[in-house]
Amino acid sequence: MEKRAVVILSGGLDSTTCMGIAAAEGYALYALTFDYGQRHRIEIEAAKRVAEHYRAREHRIARLDFLRAIGGSALTDPSIPVPTHGLSDEIPVTYVPARNLLFLALAAAYAEVKEAEAIFIGVNALDYSGYPDCRPAFIEAMQEAIRRGTKAGVEGRPIAIHTPLLHMSKAEIIRTGIKLGVPYHLTTSCYQGGDVACGVCDSCRLRIKGFQEAGARDPIPYAVPIAWPDSAR
Amino acid sequence: MEKRAVVILSGGLDSTTCMGIAAAEGYALYALTFDYGQRHRIEIEAAKRVAEHYRAREHRIARLDFLRAIGGSALTDPSIPVPTHGLSDEIPVTYVPARNLLFLALAAAYAEVKEAEAIFIGVNALDYSGYPDCRPAFIEAMQEAIRRGTKAGVEGRPIAIHTPLLHMSKAEIIRTGIKLGVPYHLTTSCYQGGDVACGVCDSCRLRIKGFQEAGARDPIPYAVPIAWPDSAR
Repeated sequence: MEKRAVVILSGGLDSTTCMGIAAAEGYALYALTFDYGQRHRIEIEAAKRVAEHYRAREHRIARLDFLRAIGGSALTDPSIPVPTHGLSDEIPVTYVPARNLLFLALAAAYAEVKEAEAIFIGVNALDYSGYPDCRPAFIEAMQEAIRRGTKAGVEGRPIAIHTPLLHMSKAEIIRTGIKLGVPYHLTTSCYQGGDVACGVCDSCRLRIKGFQEAGARDPIPYAVPIAWPDSAR
Repeated sequence: MEKRAVVILSGGLDSTTCMGIAAAEGYALYALTFDYGQRHRIEIEAAKRVAEHYRAREHRIARLDFLRAIGGSALTDPSIPVPTHGLSDEIPVTYVPARNLLFLALAAAYAEVKEAEAIFIGVNALDYSGYPDCRPAFIEAMQEAIRRGTKAGVEGRPIAIHTPLLHMSKAEIIRTGIKLGVPYHLTTSCYQGGDVACGVCDSCRLRIKGFQEAGARDPIPYAVPIAWPDSAR
């Protein structure tokens, strides 16, 4: 029987690499993008281009206006400024309350209806150590909740959460993606959500550093000059 | 400090009893109702009346159009008929994929933003044994996922899931509610969603049987004659 996977696709670098990995593993792809009032709405456009690139069987965009309505995050609440001063060890203001809990719950519902056996999510424990819902311990607990809380799980066909990027550095993710021909030129990561990436928000900083460490040049344009490695094409 | 609780409020009998219990325990109430394209939209109107009755601090109605869009349940997909032939041990077609997984994830996000320490959900393991996401084992796993996946949990103030009805029979729930003065006349339970309860769908059958066993009369009208206990007022 055909292998099916729901891929949580934000249109950013990590989730697009996940699409590339799921595609390389031979899954029929059901892409799932969340529209939760995030500032970087151009991510949704990027997600559409990526889903099309990979010929996804379906691409669903789930509106989660509730997350914007309750506020509590710099990514959904315009009254909280997005930080541009660099990374720290604290839980960032860009943390969206219970986001991955919610994303995985929605992905499980979708997987159950489509009889998909896998959910791919591009969480990363190293770069985003400040987010509690990116840690392996959370993913394990969520896997168990999905196993016990779904018809598929109870009937012995549990939906497996795949987190291929969990322990990779950003540079390793990018190297993996380049090998698989992941279309990074279609992606966007900037928290500011402008047409051109700002180059200074947490998310841009991580992405640029990743390409630099991978010895590669990011194919997207930035609003500020970036020192790309001499060897990068 | 003030105790705050998010109460998942459908406008049905069980969730309204949960409101009564949370109110009696002295919580400031944040009611949360889900609009997921269910057929019984009059439930949402009932939820509004119940939230008002209990002077909830807030009442949020979260639209989950995604659940309707993906289909897969008689409650959200008009092409699947609602059964009226009585109860069985199988997972019913009225099962909404991963519903409580999703409801609890959204409640956790809301609780985190409101700094609530409790989530009340009216799941019941006895009457709804066919639903995997109403079982104690699922609730335990979800509690752990919420503890590990939220800022509150990581910082040592885990959000506790309260399931006061988990092991009660319908009759026990109703007796508890009557003692607490729960306004059952404001509630609705019918899967058919008409102005008057049908009296024959699974949900009506459970409710009627519960009032009968509690020796009470349901204050809402039914479309078919019901044999109420002689002693009931």
